[in-house]
Amino acid sequence: AAPDIVERLEELARFSAAGPGVTRLAYDDAWCDAHRWLAREADSLGLAATADWAGNLFLHDRAVAPGRHDPPVILIGSHLDSVVRGGRYDGAYGTIAGLLIAAANRGRAGLPVVGFVTCEEEDSRFHGGMMGARSLLGRVGDGELDAIADRDGVTWRQALAAARERGCAAPPGPAGTAAPPLLRPAYQLELHIEQGPVLERRHFGIGIVERIAGYRRWIARIEGESRHSGTTPMAMRRDTLTAAAEMILAAERVGREAGEPAVATAGFVHAEPGLFNVVPGACELWLEVRHDRPEDLERLAADIAQCCRDVAQHRGLRLALTEGAAQAPTSLSPGLAEVATRLAQEMEIPHRPMPSGAAHDTMIFAQAGIPALLVFVPSRAGVSHSPDEFTAESELLTGVRFMDVLCRRLAEHP
Amino acid sequence: AAPDIVERLEELARFSAAGPGVTRLAYDDAWCDAHRWLAREADSLGLAATADWAGNLFLHDRAVAPGRHDPPVILIGSHLDSVVRGGRYDGAYGTIAGLLIAAANRGRAGLPVVGFVTCEEEDSRFHGGMMGARSLLGRVGDGELDAIADRDGVTWRQALAAARERGCAAPPGPAGTAAPPLLRPAYQLELHIEQGPVLERRHFGIGIVERIAGYRRWIARIEGESRHSGTTPMAMRRDTLTAAAEMILAAERVGREAGEPAVATAGFVHAEPGLFNVVPGACELWLEVRHDRPEDLERLAADIAQCCRDVAQHRGLRLALTEGAAQAPTSLSPGLAEVATRLAQEMEIPHRPMPSGAAHDTMIFAQAGIPALLVFVPSRAGVSHSPDEFTAESELLTGVRFMDVLCRRLAEHP
Repeated sequence: AAPDIVERLEELARFSAAGPGVTRLAYDDAWCDAHRWLAREADSLGLAATADWAGNLFLHDRAVAPGRHDPPVILIGSHLDSVVRGGRYDGAYGTIAGLLIAAANRGRAGLPVVGFVTCEEEDSRFHGGMMGARSLLGRVGDGELDAIADRDGVTWRQALAAARERGCAAPPGPAGTAAPPLLRPAYQLELHIEQGPVLERRHFGIGIVERIAGYRRWIARIEGESRHSGTTPMAMRRDTLTAAAEMILAAERVGREAGEPAVATAGFVHAEPGLFNVVPGACELWLEVRHDRPEDLERLAADIAQCCRDVAQHRGLRLALTEGAAQAPTSLSPGLAEVATRLAQEMEIPHRPMPSGAAHDTMIFAQAGIPALLVFVPSRAGVSHSPDEFTAESELLTGVRFMDVLCRRLAEHP
Repeated sequence: AAPDIVERLEELARFSAAGPGVTRLAYDDAWCDAHRWLAREADSLGLAATADWAGNLFLHDRAVAPGRHDPPVILIGSHLDSVVRGGRYDGAYGTIAGLLIAAANRGRAGLPVVGFVTCEEEDSRFHGGMMGARSLLGRVGDGELDAIADRDGVTWRQALAAARERGCAAPPGPAGTAAPPLLRPAYQLELHIEQGPVLERRHFGIGIVERIAGYRRWIARIEGESRHSGTTPMAMRRDTLTAAAEMILAAERVGREAGEPAVATAGFVHAEPGLFNVVPGACELWLEVRHDRPEDLERLAADIAQCCRDVAQHRGLRLALTEGAAQAPTSLSPGLAEVATRLAQEMEIPHRPMPSGAAHDTMIFAQAGIPALLVFVPSRAGVSHSPDEFTAESELLTGVRFMDVLCRRLAEHP
């Protein structure tokens, strides 16, 4: 199924807005062009391509009729959209893999293997939270089509109507909103680049994801006193940037001491007034902690918040710690992970179980109760969401070969 | 000499651009209006007002003829310009004190006591470095009038010509540049608010400044790797914001451990890309250290720079440590400080010797070899460069009374 993967990734990467790397936001011109190209590729491989009401795409044996096909199917794929100035592998790899594996499994006995391509995963145009996988599964709220809008105020409904006119989405449901799901997944499989450095550094061919980490975020607003740096003795300062520095290092320490897969990150800080000669009297700091187990995530979050409060109290500063976005950890299918692990042993592919620190479409399928599996291949230097994203051809092929065999096994012995 | 000081400070504060606090930048409308108001006030107190070529103003006995008066004089005063949205005491207090003390000493025997008002000290319109005191003393370079410009590109020469048309400056020298100094100072005295919290916290009426601190500044540019916060284990990160946090705390520690008057400050930090979910791969940090003794300043500067290098090396990051502006510490006149200390004892004013952490006009006079003295009065809560700047009337009066007696003593017994 695999020989054409690098060439097809190159072709898919051409569907991009101007600028370095790949910029393909949900429903935009590049996205629509890529969508139609995928349908043509499917056709050339003997598959049919069927879009659902939201622009998710199914690549399937012509014997399968989405919307009228009741028996369950194996879904394998990923997302079509990218971040702004992203790379050519994130989402695209799993999308092309799904196309090729669906084609390779066309006409076989057992569960049909259907490629899926979600319309949106990156939150890079809309901030709807996995709109693609949710709409594919019928998990979209009534008001969302009008409530979710991009930065220019274009709503999901409006953007979708434009894509529909270009043939990239089916009509909506009778009430003008979500239509029912077109297919019933027995399993959902996703192949994706790791977007981290672990597999490369530790020389594994694939990572079998057991859990997707959740996260907690805070915006810390620290208030002290802006004073002249030359005339205010060290002992009389109420410096908010030194306090932020202690909080940054406390978060790092909590993340380190908890051990993998815990991570804690300070991503943003802004000190006011931001001059050489003024002790900063106000500071904003963004903190995040991730873990793949709910009880650990809660414990680490409580530790970091307490460290921040202790720093502020010790330094005599006011602290407002506002909770930002949060995501609960998600367990994927232990049964599928076990089947995958046995297969990797059998195929002699160096593999390891691992958590995913980033969210993926698979999370939504798992949350919907569908047995779901996410498999990673290495990312060079852990680079992702960048034009420098890279995975070697041999590694791409290993992933596709593995998922192809896995699909066949699951199709034959569901 | 003192009863009218609060009223006159209120009047002077009205000469300001719109907005909160006092905004009176060198040669602007508010500055010219204040300049002419000072001349009228001098006249009403029986003094003459003479501007030099740069718009510095002398308030003097009509018997003194600036430009034709050879014997030395005692100069007492401060600067007329303010920061943007500054307070009503910084510079203004010493200016009004100079006016009142010159008036009170008018006609007395001994050295003439002349009020001086420098045109520019705050670097808030031009970045020329104490243009007022330097031009008053004939310490301006040939090219400076054309090289120094404000943010709109208006040169010192152009701004000065406009002020001259409004009667606020004398003609330039024959070559169109600096004219010779108009008076020869035997002593230079400046009364100023502390702009720090020390006198208020420790219940002193005046501070007798022995030395003006120098400073060293750096822009630290730290480079590591921007990576996904969820997929990059703690041990595989090259995080520049945690490194900056260590540098911020190292600078604070160096400043604290050195004891007063050492101060070290991180005033600005910017981490890139500045998102919740990306480990910052680049960071810029501004650091400053001050001390009033050259050897201590050099030692602390070396310590901080070494700490930064150690942090970068330990974390495997690139560091470019660029030296920013620097200022050498300046010693004021020990003889004058001793006379002042004896006088304060005699007058039973609680006083302490102290360094100045901020630069003042007096620094330029001292660097020119003129016996110079700077005296502070308390600043409420150490607030300065803010509309909230405040010093109580009784404290203002103590300062003026003290300087008035000091001038009389020095005039009688030079």
